Amino acid sequence: MLSTRGFEGLTLRAVAAEMGASTGLLTHYFPSKKALVAHALEVLDRRSLARPRRLAPAEGEPPPEGLARLRAALLDVLPLDGPGRAGNRIWVGSWDVALADPELAGAHAARYARARGLLTECVEAARRLGELPAGPPADEVAAAAQAFVLGLVVQALFAPAEFPARRQTGLLDDYLARLVAGGDGDRHAGGHGGGSSA
Amino acid sequence: MLSTRGFEGLTLRAVAAEMGASTGLLTHYFPSKKALVAHALEVLDRRSLARPRRLAPAEGEPPPEGLARLRAALLDVLPLDGPGRAGNRIWVGSWDVALADPELAGAHAARYARARGLLTECVEAARRLGELPAGPPADEVAAAAQAFVLGLVVQALFAPAEFPARRQTGLLDDYLARLVAGGDGDRHAGGHGGGSSA
Repeated sequence: MLSTRGFEGLTLRAVAAEMGASTGLLTHYFPSKKALVAHALEVLDRRSLARPRRLAPAEGEPPPEGLARLRAALLDVLPLDGPGRAGNRIWVGSWDVALADPELAGAHAARYARARGLLTECVEAARRLGELPAGPPADEVAAAAQAFVLGLVVQALFAPAEFPARRQTGLLDDYLARLVAGGDGDRHAGGHGGGSSA
Repeated sequence: MLSTRGFEGLTLRAVAAEMGASTGLLTHYFPSKKALVAHALEVLDRRSLARPRRLAPAEGEPPPEGLARLRAALLDVLPLDGPGRAGNRIWVGSWDVALADPELAGAHAARYARARGLLTECVEAARRLGELPAGPPADEVAAAAQAFVLGLVVQALFAPAEFPARRQTGLLDDYLARLVAGGDGDRHAGGHGGGSSA
């Protein structure tokens, strides 16, 4: 229900009806819509962690590291298939409720900070492996990469026909190729710092 | 109200109370919550277009073009100040309702497509001016830049202390510097295409 009607359509009554339970029983476990929302997001979090992930190595192969791991972690966020779209639709839909509630907002902020922490590790590893050049602090690179995929999620949810999986992956690979190429030494974009390397 | 309680808290009754009008009167103009939401977004759209924008030239100066216009258009999206935060909070909050409704979703998709059109023009102009190197199609560069700022909006709304205006601007300038430097000729990030230019 959340993946089609959103949090807007999430009422204790609707959930009870869907479960074939009484509203009274449901209210016993979830005294408020907020408690229900928090629970729904926790379930989604656990389900996301449990599903087969691109981060997991194929059988017999070593786990990806460095740049390959960074790419896998970022791909993992994108709505590349049905479950990816449904899960992302719920996350994006939860932002309205979460921004109106300090506790839920804090939980979201902590999730994104954790994810940035993982991305930061990947960037640092990629630099140690010589796959990424030195440049801005690794956590800045991680924050930028996270912004990029979050925004791509939103674009792809609103215009799925314009942003099929292939295009999303291509955009991400372009993004990573720019990281690989470096070129952030000239921080001021107005400064004509570039050659034409492409 | 929308910028604090979100669409979740938007009810005809609450709006009527805030306006000092009767629910009956409000229902006369907005027969459904959806009609109210659509109207709220239109008002916000008009207000965004009317406010002093970074795209507008300072007095006596020529309007920005090319890369400077691209930067101004992207900066204009970010929650760099109070009104920017309030407006963005409403936009982000509207995604839940909009994704549940094909008509509202279509209106949002059209808005983002228009914005990508403007960004595409900027990229093309910047290339003509020699400010940006050749590379992927201009509309791909525009889509990627839009993804980047949309995701940065979300990050900044959830973690305002971590993403003050200065950091948002710095991240955007890093992003633009990478565009200026090019380096997307090697599309596969796994391909060790980079030097260390930074």
